[in-house]
Order: sequence, then C-alpha cells, then structure tokens
Amino acid sequence: MLAAMKVAFIGLGKMGSGMARNLLRAGHQVTVYNCTRKKSEALEKDGARVGDSPSAACRGAEAAITMLADDHAVEEMVFGDNGIAAALEANAVHISSSTISTAFARRLESEHQKRGQAYLSAPVFGRPEAASAKNLLVVSAGDPRIVDRCRPLFEAIGRASFVAGTEPWQANAVKLCGNFMIASMMESFGEAFAILRKSNVDRHFFVEVMNALFGSPVYANYGAIIASESFEPAGFGLKLGLKDIRLILQAAEERAAPMPLASLIRDQFLSALAHGQEDADWSSVSKVAARNAGL
Amino acid sequence: MLAAMKVAFIGLGKMGSGMARNLLRAGHQVTVYNCTRKKSEALEKDGARVGDSPSAACRGAEAAITMLADDHAVEEMVFGDNGIAAALEANAVHISSSTISTAFARRLESEHQKRGQAYLSAPVFGRPEAASAKNLLVVSAGDPRIVDRCRPLFEAIGRASFVAGTEPWQANAVKLCGNFMIASMMESFGEAFAILRKSNVDRHFFVEVMNALFGSPVYANYGAIIASESFEPAGFGLKLGLKDIRLILQAAEERAAPMPLASLIRDQFLSALAHGQEDADWSSVSKVAARNAGL
Amino acid sequence: MLAAMKVAFIGLGKMGSGMARNLLRAGHQVTVYNCTRKKSEALEKDGARVGDSPSAACRGAEAAITMLADDHAVEEMVFGDNGIAAALEANAVHISSSTISTAFARRLESEHQKRGQAYLSAPVFGRPEAASAKNLLVVSAGDPRIVDRCRPLFEAIGRASFVAGTEPWQANAVKLCGNFMIASMMESFGEAFAILRKSNVDRHFFVEVMNALFGSPVYANYGAIIASESFEPAGFGLKLGLKDIRLILQAAEERAAPMPLASLIRDQFLSALAHGQEDADWSSVSKVAARNAGL
Amino acid sequence: MLAAMKVAFIGLGKMGSGMARNLLRAGHQVTVYNCTRKKSEALEKDGARVGDSPSAACRGAEAAITMLADDHAVEEMVFGDNGIAAALEANAVHISSSTISTAFARRLESEHQKRGQAYLSAPVFGRPEAASAKNLLVVSAGDPRIVDRCRPLFEAIGRASFVAGTEPWQANAVKLCGNFMIASMMESFGEAFAILRKSNVDRHFFVEVMNALFGSPVYANYGAIIASESFEPAGFGLKLGLKDIRLILQAAEERAAPMPLASLIRDQFLSALAHGQEDADWSSVSKVAARNAGL
Repeated sequence: MLAAMKVAFIGLGKMGSGMARNLLRAGHQVTVYNCTRKKSEALEKDGARVGDSPSAACRGAEAAITMLADDHAVEEMVFGDNGIAAALEANAVHISSSTISTAFARRLESEHQKRGQAYLSAPVFGRPEAASAKNLLVVSAGDPRIVDRCRPLFEAIGRASFVAGTEPWQANAVKLCGNFMIASMMESFGEAFAILRKSNVDRHFFVEVMNALFGSPVYANYGAIIASESFEPAGFGLKLGLKDIRLILQAAEERAAPMPLASLIRDQFLSALAHGQEDADWSSVSKVAARNAGL
Repeated sequence: MLAAMKVAFIGLGKMGSGMARNLLRAGHQVTVYNCTRKKSEALEKDGARVGDSPSAACRGAEAAITMLADDHAVEEMVFGDNGIAAALEANAVHISSSTISTAFARRLESEHQKRGQAYLSAPVFGRPEAASAKNLLVVSAGDPRIVDRCRPLFEAIGRASFVAGTEPWQANAVKLCGNFMIASMMESFGEAFAILRKSNVDRHFFVEVMNALFGSPVYANYGAIIASESFEPAGFGLKLGLKDIRLILQAAEERAAPMPLASLIRDQFLSALAHGQEDADWSSVSKVAARNAGL
Repeated sequence: MLAAMKVAFIGLGKMGSGMARNLLRAGHQVTVYNCTRKKSEALEKDGARVGDSPSAACRGAEAAITMLADDHAVEEMVFGDNGIAAALEANAVHISSSTISTAFARRLESEHQKRGQAYLSAPVFGRPEAASAKNLLVVSAGDPRIVDRCRPLFEAIGRASFVAGTEPWQANAVKLCGNFMIASMMESFGEAFAILRKSNVDRHFFVEVMNALFGSPVYANYGAIIASESFEPAGFGLKLGLKDIRLILQAAEERAAPMPLASLIRDQFLSALAHGQEDADWSSVSKVAARNAGL
Repeated sequence: MLAAMKVAFIGLGKMGSGMARNLLRAGHQVTVYNCTRKKSEALEKDGARVGDSPSAACRGAEAAITMLADDHAVEEMVFGDNGIAAALEANAVHISSSTISTAFARRLESEHQKRGQAYLSAPVFGRPEAASAKNLLVVSAGDPRIVDRCRPLFEAIGRASFVAGTEPWQANAVKLCGNFMIASMMESFGEAFAILRKSNVDRHFFVEVMNALFGSPVYANYGAIIASESFEPAGFGLKLGLKDIRLILQAAEERAAPMPLASLIRDQFLSALAHGQEDADWSSVSKVAARNAGL
C-alpha cells in the first residue's frame, strides 16, 4: 500500500468538502482550512484537524491542496496574510485543483520555485456528487517526480487520473478545454431545442434520441436538465461558467488560437447574465437561444 | 410474429445496401432499384428481386423506401420518368429515409396525398457499418396508423425506433438537429485541439480524457479520427455534411429560430471546401480551426 | 445628345416608379407594366404608354428593364404567361435591376442567349427618394458592347454608373456585397448602442461622433434612424433585407468564401423576425443586440 | 482669447508628438516627458521644456496629459517611481488621452480623487497625420467644470471636441466603440473582397463603388489600403488593434452587453497574429477572410 501523506486542504466548498473527506478515507492525515470555520468543523468527525489559517494548516504538510473559486481566491490564500507561500516547507508541494487561468498557474509555479517549493496543477472534472463519491477525473501536470509522489492523493479523490504534461499550466489548459466541450454541448442543445420547440417536437423526445445516439451520461444529464429547465438550484453556477469561458478565451489569446465557438458561448453567457440568470445553472445559457427564437 | 411486407427499396449506396439486406433477413419481400444495376444484383443472392426502374420496383409494393443522397435525387426518383409517385398503388406508403429538407418532406407528403398514397419520413442515424449491422436509429414521423403499419420495417433495419410526431417533416427536423449536434462536437474538438497543440498537449491524450468525461462512443470515434487526422477514405463526406448544415439552416429560417453555432459550422465547412477538402470526411472540418491558429 | 431608346419598364414599386419617370424625363420612350394597373396609369401623365402585359410592353422595345422584389417575381415576369422572354425581339436586351441571386442571373443570361436576346444585370443602390431624384448608383455587368449601348439608360436613372465585369452576375455580386456592407454597419451600430445605453451614453451623441469620424451620409442617416428607433414606416423592409443576406450567403457558398459576419447578420435578422419585426425597417435588426443585452 | 495653461505632456509617440506640438502652437506652456529623451528634445525647438521624469514634468502643471500605449504604460507613469500621482498638485487634473480600459479609467479617477486631484478621460480619434494636423476628434468625459477648464487644451489638438458624460470612463467606452465601428468596417471589407476576388471583380472597383455609396473618407482610406494590401509600415499596428478589441469586449462583459461582432473580430485578429501579422497594419486582419476562402 502507498504511504499516507500529510496534507493541508484549503477550500471546503461543495467540491472541496467531498475531496477532503475522501483523502481522509484513504488514510491521509488532513488538516483543513476554510474561510467559514463551520465547514472545517464538519470534517472533524471524519478525522480532519482544523487549521486556524492557511499557514497553520500547512505546517508540516507534504502537500497543500487548494480548491477555490478562481484566480483571485487562490491568490489570497497563497500570497495573502498567513498564506500558503510563506508557510509551506521547502520541497513540499502546492497542488492547485481549482479551475484557474493558465497564466496564473505559471505565476504560481514560478513563485513557489523561488521559495524552494514545488507546484502542480491538478484540476478535476465532476460535479459535487462526483466529488463526494470519489468519482472525479483528475488531470495533473508538472514535474513528473512530483506528480508521481502525489499520485496517492489523486487516487484518493478520483476514479481516474491523467497526466497532461510536465508544465503545470498544461493541466489547466486541458481542464478549460474540457469545460468548453461541455459548454459547446449545452449551446448545441439550446439551439436544437429552440428550432424543435417551434417544430412542435418534444424536447424530452429529442434527449431520448440523443441518448441513443451519443450514449453519454453527460448528454443524458444535461439534456434532461435543459429540456425540463431545472436550472435552480444550480449545480454549477452561470457566473462560474462564464469565468471558465473567459479563461479559455484568455488562453486562446495567449496561444493565438482563435476559438469562435468559445466566443459564441461567451456572448450567450453574457446575454444570460443580462437577463438575470446569474444564480441559475450554467446550462440555463440555453435560454438565450430560445429567447432569440422568440420563445 | 409480424407479417412480412412487400417492399420496394430505391437507392443502394453504402447505407441503402445494408438496410435492404436487413429487410430481407427479417423476412420481407424486397424489390430493389439502383441507378447502377450492379448494386442491385449484389443483393439477389440475399433474396432480393431486381426492378428495372423505380416504378417497376413499386409494382404491388405496400411500401417504397428511398435512401438517396439529397432532395434532388429523391425528386428524380419520385417525380421523374418511371418514378415512384406515378407507380405506387393507392394506400401504399412512400418512406423517405434520406436526409432531406423539411420543405421537401412537406412537398412529398402533399404530392403523395393528392395521389391517394401515404408518406412517412423515416431518416436514420448511423454510419454504413451500423446500416450493415442493423444498428441504425430510425426516427419516423407521420400519420400514426401508417407509422404503426411500418414498424416491422423500422425494426428490421435498426436497433431502436423513435416517433417524432404526426407530421413527416418533424422527423427530418430531428435528424438534421442530430447531425448538427455531431457537427458541433466536431467543431469543439477542432478548436480544443488547436489550442492544445499550441500548448504541447497530445491530442490523443485529450481524447482519452474526453472519453472518461463523456463516456460516449461518438466522442471516442470522432475524437480518434480527428486526433489522428484519418480523414480519408471518408465515412461521411464533407460535401454531404455541408448539405446537412445547409438544410438545418434552411429549417432554422423557416421557423425563425437563429442557430449561430450552425452558422459557424457552415462557415468552417465552406473554408474546408475552399481548401480542397471536399472528398475528405466531414470531421476534417476541424482542420479549419487548426489553420486559423497557424498550424 | 444620346439617342432616345424604346424601353419596356416592368415593376413600378417605390423604386421602379421613380426610375421609369427619370427615363421618360431623359427623353426615352417608355412602355410600363405593373401587376396593379393603377401604378402604370400614374405614369401616363409623364408620357408613359401602358402595356397590358409584360409581353405587350416589350413589343418593339430595344430594352426591357425589370425592377421587382426577388428571383421569384422576376421569374414570373420573364418566363410566365405573356412573359418577357417570349416577347422580346432578337438582339433586344433584358436589363434586370432587381436584387436577384447570382445563380438566377446566370440562368437569365443563358435563357436569353438561347432566344437570341441579350441580358445585363444592372442593380442599383439607393432608397426610393434616390430613385425619384435620379440619385441612384447603377452597377451593371455583361457584354461590353451591350453595356455601352445601354449607357444612356443608366445615365438617365442614376448619378453614377459602374461596370463590374463582363458577366452579368458579377454586378449582382457587387450589389449584394454593398448591401452586406450596409447591414454590417447596422449591426455594429446595434452592438455599440447596446453597450453605450448600458453606460448611460446618449445614442444621438454617439451618432454625432461617428458623423465626425466617418463623414458619411449613410452613417448619419442610419445612425439617426437606429438611435431614435424610427423603424416604421420601413424604408427597406426587414424581410427584403433578410432576403439580400440570404442571397449573399448563397453566393458565398457558390464561391466557397466564408462570410462569418454575413452569417451573424442573418441570425440577427432571424431573431428580429421571431420578434415580429417583419414589417419594420431592416435597420431594426439593431434591436436584437439591445434585447440580448437585456434592454 | 482663452488663457494659456501650464501643461505636462507624457508620452511622445507618433500621436503624442503631434499633440504636444499643437499645444505649444496654441500658446500653452508645455513640459514634456518621454521614456527615450530624444523625442522630448525634438520638441524643444517648438518651445517645449523637457522634464527628467513624469513627476518633474508635472511640477507646477495645471494639467498632465498622458498619451501612452495601454493600461500598463499609463499605470507605470502614474503610479510608478516619480510618477504623476505623487507629483501632481491638488486641484490639478490628469487627462488620459490613451485608449485605456473603462475599468482602469475608473481606478484612475478614484486614485486621483483620493489625492485631491482631478481626472478626465479624453481619448482621441485620428491617425498620426491627424494628430500633426490638429485634426483629431477629442471625446472627453468627467466633472463638467473640469471639462470646461480643459476645453482650450482639447481645442488646441483637435478639429472637434465632444463630451460623452460626467464619468470619465464613459469617454473610454465611446472611444472603444468607435474603434469597434472601424474594425467592423475592415472585417466587412475583408469578407466582401474575398468573395469578389473569387468572382473576378476587381477590389479597387468595389472601393470606388463603396466610395460613391458611403461617401466616407474612412472607407476610401481603408478600402484602398486593404484593396492594395499596403499593410506595412503600419499606421496602427495589429497588436494595438487587438488590444482595443479586447478592451471593448471587457467593457461588454462589465455591462453584460454581448457584442458578437466584436467577438468575431477578435478571433480574426488572433488568426492574423497566428500568421505572423503582428507588425502589420490592423487592417491586414482582412487577410484572414481571404485565407479562409483559400486565397
């Protein structure tokens, strides 16, 4: 069996709580930190220790995992007061599982390197249920020796683990592309549903056909959500979705690789925002195509 | 067991040959017609009779199935010399399985009605291998009693059968939307691959991750084709793909339902044509995103 | 002075009436035909003779000018009962000034050629006021000798005349591109106004700045219409605008030249239609951008 | 006559040099600063004093005008070592004429306010020739009393001056929208030229027709540049153009106002970059449409 590791886990939202719990179940020694302490305490019965600050959580840790909303939140936890960067020991590794920009991933790598610390990007695919059920997909990237060392952690939280490359930001590029693939599917459902509604074809009927055609749980899941317009409560909020599309477009600009479909999706998200859908599920972007068809 | 039917089958291309063979295997009595007689004769050993013309094939038939390239080809076989419309008996049904426009489906319905004949649209999803393996999805629409009567035929050629509505053209709308969903996936793969190549991430790696994420044979199949650029020989040619996108855009105009993603795909197809890809697989549209990224 | 010509003029809508009147003023001998006879009679006081049918109008004419809504209307007048094609004398020329498709222009040329008749495309730029004021731009194309022969006609109706090439359809391509340029300007105004309204910047103020920047009467005119939302009565209806965009997209497909901006405009027009704007001015397409911004 | 003002002018690129010279000509007392001192010295013969640093230039100034490449450059000059913010006297005004983001304009306003200083945005329209010829359009915004006080400066550098609103960033929104209008025109020329070239219609011919249609020097100028592909030396570089499109898209996101045409232009700019056009004129974006048509 692989040796248990000493881990700091920062960020106990819907995703992070499940991930931290699965690390504990796999036998790792986990100290958690969250802005609102209550969520930390909820993990105590699972064996977690509670840190009073990111730096306290990092004390003695071999790895610090961050699972936060965006670049800004990670920046605060890493470089803010009592942050990870100042506390993490030499040779310990910071693993960012948040969906962050490729540019910020490069900055994290370089800042940690300056401090003698290691850095990996290891974003995950999956909704909160998947996080709870140890059913995530983990896409990591970075120095292969560090990736190897952290494998037990990835195995503890996901059903499969992939290594995108030797530079951390490559994992973020893959994660953003994956979310772009899902958003593309949502947009195509939205447009198809608009014309089908105006053709008096039942949306659920179309989902059934698409299930037979694609055979994909993702199509089945989102198809059903969109067909029945079950956008609240949000599994993944529209604002976070827009953030991810913004990040892939930034990466596209970085690489000079135009992504017209991503641009289209961004504009649809903006229209959704303009119509007050910021708290709805990101799949509610499909309502924009409906509105444009006068529905 | 359901009674065997007397069927005319017109159009023995890659798709039609497999479909006709499966009708024979299911015990139906099939008279085939194809422009080049050789393909008809190839089915004789499977029990098919060979008609000298569409009208000859229709003599005494309860149903005439057409499986042809486009509106124009169907028009010729139905309304041309020795065509189906003139030969089909009263109460017999013409089943169009070709991917045709919704407007032409309405015209077929009305023309057959004038002649006391029935009409169904019953387009299919699946590549030639699926046609051979009785693995198609059949989406039919039209008068429910006629659909019921033809069910044994749909069951003979496909693994599943769906009824889209009571007006034939609705099945064509569903078929076109389905192809649009597949083309959207191809475009999203194309854009993701462009940025990932410029990020030094292996395309096959990304397909692997997408397989784990979507769990869809369609993603696995097209992902692999696109990643390895195995565009020839074409499973489904780019020109036919463009035709389908043109048809969905025509339907979108009919219904006043804008489909910006379909418009984008159309433009990419045109650029592919402009670069001489007309004989390549339609998934080679992904090369347009690559070219626009300077690859 | 250039010799007067004997001309048949078919189609006396808002544009055609002004054009026919200017031909009369220039001294040409004009026999007019219009579906509703009343509009023909209105020109009698200007010296026009009234034909009872297109063919009657063409009797003895050196040139027959058509100014009609679309391909379909021209087809009827040319190839229908008592149509132009059957009546026009050998060596006489049919001049189509309507905005028709490049494909139909090619068909007109070839059909007239078969009958020993000449054909020119000579579409015009300008609104009804410009037609009345002899202020149109005439873009012709076809056999240079025929173009030369018809020059007095072009000079009679417009302030400037241009020759696009030796094949008639080239003039139609130029006309469609010109309308595309105007529609692009309308879409850009629409998007700019949406963000500026949400920035509390007055739309008329922006038009003023754009007037100073572009110095164009077209910007001044459409900018003011769009800023004040004076979309009715329509100077040029949205449905006709959509038709023109459809025609340029068809031409783009013919030439394998993607026009993503034209595609975008088409989708905006469709959304405008879906919101009941079919009778409004085509510049009301700008409301789509506003709606998508939640305005 | 309006009283002369004491002005610091920071940033003597192609635009800034002409502007500073016109301020001197109008009788204002100008102290200039530029990173490379040589450009400052070139203005001495016109009566400029040369500052050794931004702060030195600001000493005793009533107004400090910045004319720099982007947000980043302005940030350095304002908040960096020996920056404007620290040196500008209370009640003096910083006028940013650079094309900067609306967000950064708001930050500038608030930072200056904290220091008891005033702030206006006053971006300009026009190329370097227009700057030299006192032919710019100046769009300012901010506190009306401050705008009034600075009017002599605006009149010294431009042929017309406009006030967009009472919040400085509004002027930036107008400037970005104006550049978007120009870029839209370039994209529409690019697409029209692509199809016209494939129709054997001469590009210069089309420019001539568009000149007659739009009657705009901007169309005449850019039409000729694009038709003859005279993209180097760049009047306004593609990278700066991309920056402006990025800024309008950021503003669009801020206001939740989708701008699909701006998104399309951005993608075309990225493709141009990917093909090595970073040093060409921004109007070379038209080559992307040509390439996509296989030209």
